[in-house]
Amino acid sequence: MKSPKTHPAAVAEDTREKARAASRAERDWSSVFYRVALSISRELDLERLLWLIMDEVRQALEADRCTVFLWDEDTDELWALAAHGAEEIRFPASLGIAGHVLRTGEVLNIPDAYNDPRFNPAIDRETGYRTRSILTAPLRNHVGETIGVFQVLNKESGPFTREDELLLDAISGIAATQIENARLYAELKDSFESFVETLASIIDARDPETAGHSKRLALYCEELARLLDLSAQDTEKLRIAALLHDYGKIAVREAILYKADALTEDEQESMRNHPVFTRRILEEIHFPKTLRDVPQIAAAHHERLDGSGYPDGLTGEEIPPLARLLAVVDVFDAMTSRRSYRGRMDLRDVMEELRRGQGRLYDATYVEALEQLSVARFLEILNDGELSFMSSADREVLSGLDLRTLVNLLNTNVPTPEVRLFERYYLPDETQGCENGQT
Amino acid sequence: MKSPKTHPAAVAEDTREKARAASRAERDWSSVFYRVALSISRELDLERLLWLIMDEVRQALEADRCTVFLWDEDTDELWALAAHGAEEIRFPASLGIAGHVLRTGEVLNIPDAYNDPRFNPAIDRETGYRTRSILTAPLRNHVGETIGVFQVLNKESGPFTREDELLLDAISGIAATQIENARLYAELKDSFESFVETLASIIDARDPETAGHSKRLALYCEELARLLDLSAQDTEKLRIAALLHDYGKIAVREAILYKADALTEDEQESMRNHPVFTRRILEEIHFPKTLRDVPQIAAAHHERLDGSGYPDGLTGEEIPPLARLLAVVDVFDAMTSRRSYRGRMDLRDVMEELRRGQGRLYDATYVEALEQLSVARFLEILNDGELSFMSSADREVLSGLDLRTLVNLLNTNVPTPEVRLFERYYLPDETQGCENGQT
Repeated sequence: MKSPKTHPAAVAEDTREKARAASRAERDWSSVFYRVALSISRELDLERLLWLIMDEVRQALEADRCTVFLWDEDTDELWALAAHGAEEIRFPASLGIAGHVLRTGEVLNIPDAYNDPRFNPAIDRETGYRTRSILTAPLRNHVGETIGVFQVLNKESGPFTREDELLLDAISGIAATQIENARLYAELKDSFESFVETLASIIDARDPETAGHSKRLALYCEELARLLDLSAQDTEKLRIAALLHDYGKIAVREAILYKADALTEDEQESMRNHPVFTRRILEEIHFPKTLRDVPQIAAAHHERLDGSGYPDGLTGEEIPPLARLLAVVDVFDAMTSRRSYRGRMDLRDVMEELRRGQGRLYDATYVEALEQLSVARFLEILNDGELSFMSSADREVLSGLDLRTLVNLLNTNVPTPEVRLFERYYLPDETQGCENGQT
Repeated sequence: MKSPKTHPAAVAEDTREKARAASRAERDWSSVFYRVALSISRELDLERLLWLIMDEVRQALEADRCTVFLWDEDTDELWALAAHGAEEIRFPASLGIAGHVLRTGEVLNIPDAYNDPRFNPAIDRETGYRTRSILTAPLRNHVGETIGVFQVLNKESGPFTREDELLLDAISGIAATQIENARLYAELKDSFESFVETLASIIDARDPETAGHSKRLALYCEELARLLDLSAQDTEKLRIAALLHDYGKIAVREAILYKADALTEDEQESMRNHPVFTRRILEEIHFPKTLRDVPQIAAAHHERLDGSGYPDGLTGEEIPPLARLLAVVDVFDAMTSRRSYRGRMDLRDVMEELRRGQGRLYDATYVEALEQLSVARFLEILNDGELSFMSSADREVLSGLDLRTLVNLLNTNVPTPEVRLFERYYLPDETQGCENGQT
């Protein structure tokens, strides 16, 4: 640690007035620390946590900038979040002042950067920023491992003080602990989500007729959630319900699932029962509070506004809104996917079918949202989310176009470049034959 | 809040010496708070966290006891952990000093309990404890909701001070936040685990021939983990691997799975491939770090020490230890379960088979551990963990007996009461016929 610089008690004459100032500063110190500790310990989302820490420390130390660099063990690099849109910052952990602090565990308080040989002015030259003072401290977890580095720049009122060092060191303990909590939480969340995705891919693989269906549904749901500006919580709920909505098919015998001929009445009954099984299975899972109605949403994807759906024949408002959304994209994906007995349906017919059912079978809000989907994204999802099948120039052309406009163009029967492009992707040659054979 | 009592700065004459004492006290306050905050914020396991909080606060306030009461919204009760073995403490949230603090959000500092009308001396009479001073404060989360109450008893040096109140109030913020973090983490963990269990029951349901197999395997694994004193982490790993070890069977066609006649060579090959599918599916899941080798363990449950197993023909140490354990209980459960073509195998033959394979096929450590399994627990697991099928008197008789002793008794052919009891449970009448038909 550096020796104290401007701590009032350390430099003050031994007078009552100065002792009181010290006591006040001490009190400020603990109230600042308390506020920061409380604020930091609330956040379990890693990215939000890192932003929060940087912001809190910047304010607490009355500095212009604060960055948290985390050590990436696998690559031996330091990395930091960058402002929205920009790529994260990354450099070898052996470099610069941050690297020095990571290796030595020292707190470095540099009052004047340009007078310190360890400072690298190259970044200032690049960015136009003028670094004056720097305070850098290690982030140590509870077993004393340094997991990263705090770097605070340009204290407003001059160089950083001994108090700033102490405060930063104290915050660093809480921050490192909470970063590790957030990592544990993220790891578990990731496990849960990858489990759901793995399940979905198994459901999808089991029925070759609808291969990739659950995954595509989840992707459509994400797009519509964005277009409708749904909350993060509703989006997540919808995504999980989409991935699991057909899980009940696991209880439908393969003999029925794979049957090429028309199903008997009993077999149809068994097929129509799959949402009941979906609900029954999903109700066994103790979903977190925020995902508690996933089973209801997933099980109602075949319900229709007029009560003609199954399994419960729910009507209108009885159907959860997110299930009404799921119903629209479920039908949409069925019609735009190939089947063994037909190619993809003509997109005009698909949208016409949804339009006709709007208000009677399907919730108009979600049909209209679907019409706003970009054609480029639609084609990507149709190809199970693979971005590589389309050239970026083509994607550029098609991303400005939404489904509604495309259908209008298709209806005018004038083969604009966009329409020709779309048709190339929507009806690739290998199915052309099959489709022609059917129509 | 109560007015200050003994804060040195508040009662001191206005001298330099006293101002310094105030500064020192303030410093102590913040160092205690810092230590407690750091310690608390590390723990994400709810039960361990509550114990930790109680212990830290008791020490920080130099008190004899500290209890955290949490509010149960569903029942409107306050509850607290009780010492190991005892039932948790629960009472209506309207009662006592804790109830008062929960409702009003007030901090109550009672210097002499027996002189306060809100104090209920009944509990002291029951327990023989002598309550002197009480400090009670609400646990408030970050949106200001009171989620519980701190109760601290008998400060060593006399009544609680104004400083104690401030410290407890500050700790309460961090504690409430971390309790909510721990609840979120527990909720997510529970989701993950119930997901795995639901999956296991689907695997089990898909193959009527081996109904309940994965669940039983997990239960046997828990018992063996206890007998072998495995770490909590290894136990969890083993349990998850057991629940998922046959998941690859999802890729085996029902026509093969349900076939009553002998399998063709191709069909056998497909069956023998199921551990490969298990590994492939489980490798898709991003398990938390602590569960990272679950796919390897689950996929190696048909490997044998001498290399005669499948899918990889691994030998000896190449097979992960937990997979060697899994192999033993997997075979054990197969032999002790009914099949359509046979009843349960005679337990003497089962244990003899394992004994003969010991060192060559099966790891002796785990065969020996299995021999120490209590007969009562064995029969419970055989009935899918249902405790209700056996009278508690019978359980009493059989819980003192392990499998090895039982087999010795069976071999002596003397029908002791234990042996007769065991035989009644192990070979219920309804399978007797089927078994006789086969032998």
